Amino acid sequence: MGSLETERTTTGWAARDPSGVLSPYTYTLRNTGPEDVFIKVICCGICHTDLHQAKNDLGMSNYPMVPGHEVVGEVLEVGSQVTKFRVGEIVGVGCIVGCCRNCRPCNTDNEQYCNKKIWFVVKIPDGMAAEQVAPLLCAGVTVYSPLKHFGLMESGLRGGILGLGGVGHMGVKIAKAMGHHVTVISSSDKKKVEALEHLGADDYVVSSDAESMQKIADSLDYIIDTVPVFHPLEPYLSVLKLDGKLILTGVINTPLQFVTPMVMLGRKVITGSFVGSMKETEEMLDFCKEKDLNSMIEVVKMDYINTAMERLEKNDVRYRFVVDVAGSKLE
Amino acid sequence: MGSLETERTTTGWAARDPSGVLSPYTYTLRNTGPEDVFIKVICCGICHTDLHQAKNDLGMSNYPMVPGHEVVGEVLEVGSQVTKFRVGEIVGVGCIVGCCRNCRPCNTDNEQYCNKKIWFVVKIPDGMAAEQVAPLLCAGVTVYSPLKHFGLMESGLRGGILGLGGVGHMGVKIAKAMGHHVTVISSSDKKKVEALEHLGADDYVVSSDAESMQKIADSLDYIIDTVPVFHPLEPYLSVLKLDGKLILTGVINTPLQFVTPMVMLGRKVITGSFVGSMKETEEMLDFCKEKDLNSMIEVVKMDYINTAMERLEKNDVRYRFVVDVAGSKLE
Repeated sequence: MGSLETERTTTGWAARDPSGVLSPYTYTLRNTGPEDVFIKVICCGICHTDLHQAKNDLGMSNYPMVPGHEVVGEVLEVGSQVTKFRVGEIVGVGCIVGCCRNCRPCNTDNEQYCNKKIWFVVKIPDGMAAEQVAPLLCAGVTVYSPLKHFGLMESGLRGGILGLGGVGHMGVKIAKAMGHHVTVISSSDKKKVEALEHLGADDYVVSSDAESMQKIADSLDYIIDTVPVFHPLEPYLSVLKLDGKLILTGVINTPLQFVTPMVMLGRKVITGSFVGSMKETEEMLDFCKEKDLNSMIEVVKMDYINTAMERLEKNDVRYRFVVDVAGSKLE
Repeated sequence: MGSLETERTTTGWAARDPSGVLSPYTYTLRNTGPEDVFIKVICCGICHTDLHQAKNDLGMSNYPMVPGHEVVGEVLEVGSQVTKFRVGEIVGVGCIVGCCRNCRPCNTDNEQYCNKKIWFVVKIPDGMAAEQVAPLLCAGVTVYSPLKHFGLMESGLRGGILGLGGVGHMGVKIAKAMGHHVTVISSSDKKKVEALEHLGADDYVVSSDAESMQKIADSLDYIIDTVPVFHPLEPYLSVLKLDGKLILTGVINTPLQFVTPMVMLGRKVITGSFVGSMKETEEMLDFCKEKDLNSMIEVVKMDYINTAMERLEKNDVRYRFVVDVAGSKLE
């Protein structure tokens, strides 16, 4: 790791307290150490977890805080021991990017579950646009990793995507690219046309419509549940088939509930997944490039960030804000 | 199936209402049809689910009801199309014993999850005592089936058994016979000596003892959770390692709760399992015979049944009541 001696200043936008309001913040960075990669941020996606963090919804936030974990940048300097990255390359920085390299998760390419994880830099395939890549670094791999881990990549599976936000919209695109039959399950029919016509979903069901939910009972191999607020689980468990998996990806600070017969009778699985490993992130980027997958994004400048955060909280975005950091005045 | 014409009477002990009190009850049986096996009951284990059913705890009971699903009997008659069983053989009747033979669960030897399941008869290996076999037909296979299905049979795994009743005590014995390191997690230290000295568990932790629970944090590959009443899940999720599985086997009519980071950070699985297939039941009986596993039981006569049910409700049994039906006066 680099020396802790601080030698230069940089400016980001930070939250100072649980209001979550962001404003310019100048801080110091250490010199580039032998294993460090120093990057200039080009753009950054905004994830619902950034909202949770900025507002201390999980009670673990430290201020001042510069949120953001879907970062794409250009390498400006590399340390003497860095061989994987070169100056001038475009790289990504995702959620989980460093680890102890010595525990069971680390030894099995599951470093996102290491207790000592820090930040990593991942390769971006040549020719992918920076603003397109940003949402993939969290939203994309959040979907890709559990599908891979739980053996759900084969063609012909029937998948459900619960919640059509940043992660959900990538869920539809990635699952379709794997050859799955994809049903979007949503709390309203507001996004029906978009889901079916623009994102390519096969079916769209409003979760409060008991008759439509009954029609898909016992039919899905998996559901990727991206909803980041409290919701009942029974309706979704009931549309899973034998051995079906409900995969939670949203951090929710209210307990979720279920009754045991709902999992016992059908041996259904409630599980969760936390972003993905470096290896999976790079695999997912290659997969998206090969399949020519694009995220649907709204690119904004930094001075729009607080409005963007408010709109995100109201789920008013199609489907991910990406901040054009390089093109914004930061100070 | 046999004709529905009724031609003979038999006596069992039935509950008449949600008091769950059992008393003699004479009813009619159809003649032995071409696919039927007619047995004389020798003995029957008492499971906590029998209590739930007799008292209508799940709101689905029909009265009068003769409970019991750990039945061992002698074949008295077989139908003209029955080739698997012969008169005079000792056989078992477990929880799930018939199916449509045409759905996805049935076609994959998972008929316990068939929507049309009814009752089956299973082979009992020669030389196993009837009263020993009875508890295996539900309690034994309830443990064996998920260990097999979830790939948890290899030697050297670290397992937890939550709750030391009928299912739990078989869990310790079966997991030990598979070569696992077994930790019993219990609400009190009442059964500590028995668990360690008589059942062969390796470790015993009282769940309310935070320090002891912390010592086994992130250490278990699985927990078989046999507790049939409401309990918090967080303490148990926290002692599972990455990809660890919490397998619920108790029917509980109050919702259980968890917060999503507890499953996301560690990709932990909450699932459930419902007894096992015929194939697994027969495999489990062979396994128990090969490993010379015995259940620990208290054999009682039929006129003790209501006292046994009361004691079971208070968890006052080591570890399964088995009713000596053949040796009891039923009327």
